[in-house]
Amino acid sequence: MRQPLASIVTAGLSKFGKREGKYSRELFAEALYEALDRCQNIQLKDIQAAFIGQMSGSFEHQEHTAPTVLEWSNLLSCEGFRVESACASSGIALHMGIIAITSGLYDIVLVGGVEKMTHRSTPEVTDILAMAADFPFEQWHGLTFPGLYALMAVAHMNKYGTTEEQMALVAVKNHSNALLNPKAHMHKEVTVEKVLSSRVIAWPLKLYDCSLISDGAACLILTRPEIARKYTDTPVHIIGVGQGHDTIGLYSRDSLTSLKAAKTAAQKAYKMAKIEPKDINVAEVHDCFTIAEIIAYEDLGFCKTGEGGRLIEEGETFIGGRIPVNTSGGLKAKGHPVGATGAAQAYEIYLQLIGEAGKRQISNATIGLTHNVGGSGASATVHIFMRGD
Amino acid sequence: MRQPLASIVTAGLSKFGKREGKYSRELFAEALYEALDRCQNIQLKDIQAAFIGQMSGSFEHQEHTAPTVLEWSNLLSCEGFRVESACASSGIALHMGIIAITSGLYDIVLVGGVEKMTHRSTPEVTDILAMAADFPFEQWHGLTFPGLYALMAVAHMNKYGTTEEQMALVAVKNHSNALLNPKAHMHKEVTVEKVLSSRVIAWPLKLYDCSLISDGAACLILTRPEIARKYTDTPVHIIGVGQGHDTIGLYSRDSLTSLKAAKTAAQKAYKMAKIEPKDINVAEVHDCFTIAEIIAYEDLGFCKTGEGGRLIEEGETFIGGRIPVNTSGGLKAKGHPVGATGAAQAYEIYLQLIGEAGKRQISNATIGLTHNVGGSGASATVHIFMRGD
Repeated sequence: MRQPLASIVTAGLSKFGKREGKYSRELFAEALYEALDRCQNIQLKDIQAAFIGQMSGSFEHQEHTAPTVLEWSNLLSCEGFRVESACASSGIALHMGIIAITSGLYDIVLVGGVEKMTHRSTPEVTDILAMAADFPFEQWHGLTFPGLYALMAVAHMNKYGTTEEQMALVAVKNHSNALLNPKAHMHKEVTVEKVLSSRVIAWPLKLYDCSLISDGAACLILTRPEIARKYTDTPVHIIGVGQGHDTIGLYSRDSLTSLKAAKTAAQKAYKMAKIEPKDINVAEVHDCFTIAEIIAYEDLGFCKTGEGGRLIEEGETFIGGRIPVNTSGGLKAKGHPVGATGAAQAYEIYLQLIGEAGKRQISNATIGLTHNVGGSGASATVHIFMRGD
Repeated sequence: MRQPLASIVTAGLSKFGKREGKYSRELFAEALYEALDRCQNIQLKDIQAAFIGQMSGSFEHQEHTAPTVLEWSNLLSCEGFRVESACASSGIALHMGIIAITSGLYDIVLVGGVEKMTHRSTPEVTDILAMAADFPFEQWHGLTFPGLYALMAVAHMNKYGTTEEQMALVAVKNHSNALLNPKAHMHKEVTVEKVLSSRVIAWPLKLYDCSLISDGAACLILTRPEIARKYTDTPVHIIGVGQGHDTIGLYSRDSLTSLKAAKTAAQKAYKMAKIEPKDINVAEVHDCFTIAEIIAYEDLGFCKTGEGGRLIEEGETFIGGRIPVNTSGGLKAKGHPVGATGAAQAYEIYLQLIGEAGKRQISNATIGLTHNVGGSGASATVHIFMRGD
């Protein structure tokens, strides 16, 4: 295994859900203050730079995210960078934070993400999210994200025999996990029958195949591995990072049944970490739609290509299975405030690796992975984390 | 003087102006291909990461900027990061590129910015630009950017006796410089009388006190200073960078007559570069409104506080003066495609330092500076450049 690139010394997450009357800046401060409470050795004044993911200024008619958020968190003296890569915004922000730590220019940086969405109507949210798809070649023709992922689902069903029941099982698992996560948006058990009989959004995707429109924020504080133990007895090291891209439009991809960007990101991250998929103990993957989690299993090498449906059917990705996925409840049930998602995934893995995941704790987790995808897969990032021993 | 942080080996700029029928992605490619033409030793495949500034997805209903732009430039194999900090987006992207080079993780990175604005009506542009101001405390009450800078202008006039004529001289100078820049948006000489008699936008700011709504893109290719001469005989080194922040709302600032964010950024950059304001031979500053250039003179230490109006009146910042400012024509006349501006400023300084600024060339320029401001000054960044000898 390689030397760590950077180490997480603390992390925080706001409650996800409908956070009426809250602005992004307030949600971010909520996450940050949890992180500071968790690690008394870090003070606001120690933070030298902040890398903050947010997808769109359109939700709150507010760009200039970094100073807006920094002011509210009493962090105006630090440097601030807002990063956008659609739903992978804070995964990419984490990547930037790692680069910053590696540069040696900073000892301590803040990484995070935030989005406030629920004050908008569903058509408005759908329209704003569509900005992550190609304007002239997709949006213009009426394609929105349920439609794009439905195209992938149909292709996967046709090519590999993946079933609606297998997709429904992803929802069943993630809703079940969310019941164990007090900060999850939705605490509601669902059954395969309930998913299958829910209203069709874009066939074969039904209501319960879709992730939740949520409000929330997440953050991590990173430092150089050599000095991590000055701040905490339980650092979590980042040992691999990968980023990949593909065409913005789905129509010009080589494949509809796998995300090249995610495969590229995963290969780079595994290579850098000098580990293999079988070494991963726990993972948070980008289940914006249930089919996306099945494709993620394959792109990450948790199973062979085409066997993602079987992997969930065999229970391997449930808590207690070989490789538990989305113990937090995932985008599906914890919620998907898009700009916060990548950092929130890392927060969950951080909790699992330090043994503070409560009722959803995996036993003996040493290595974890996050998989964060932008739009229909024009960008993706994979991070690999290791418990500091 | 300090060791360089990073070196520019080439740079490119699209034509600025009304670029009808072009998308951001096409404008960015235009800038990139100039950069590649200028330096035959750099190929697309050499670029490992790209840091791209863009202010708002709202102009083109298109977020997910990095992969969109990378695809069009045939750069999908490189890492991509979109950075937003309102009108300082690509100045902050340049900062991020410098951090990336310093990390040692990359040999060659692309930095740039782009915005496409002119397909929108003026009220739409005004509304989108207002997203750089505070939503609950400014936008909601009807404040837009001409109004915010008008408040600063009035305060400066009251406190220091700055006159409308002095502000008009900034426009006269920058329009005159733009006549020497083939890529400038507007080629039109203006006189003090013409500025003073133009229509009032937000008193004391009149039409010719305001910068231009433009389309355009700019980019720079950076490498590690140790290897810069592998690629070019005329590298330009970056020897200082500073970033500063202030409250997003103007109402809660300590001062209306100076930008704390810009002063902080300048102090950090000068300190890092180990130089003083008097060492600067040429500068591009953020003249979104004429008053902003006068305030910039003071914040950057080109004159004493309160004496910015006198500095322009005495001709010191004209080509041929002690410290020529905005030889490109500035935001005022070259144009202000907001996300492109920071990188376009660096492009101009690059040309001046390698002696390729054509009819607007300054003689014996060794050290240059850029000053890029977000919104009304909640973010700012200053970079200092030195000709490689």
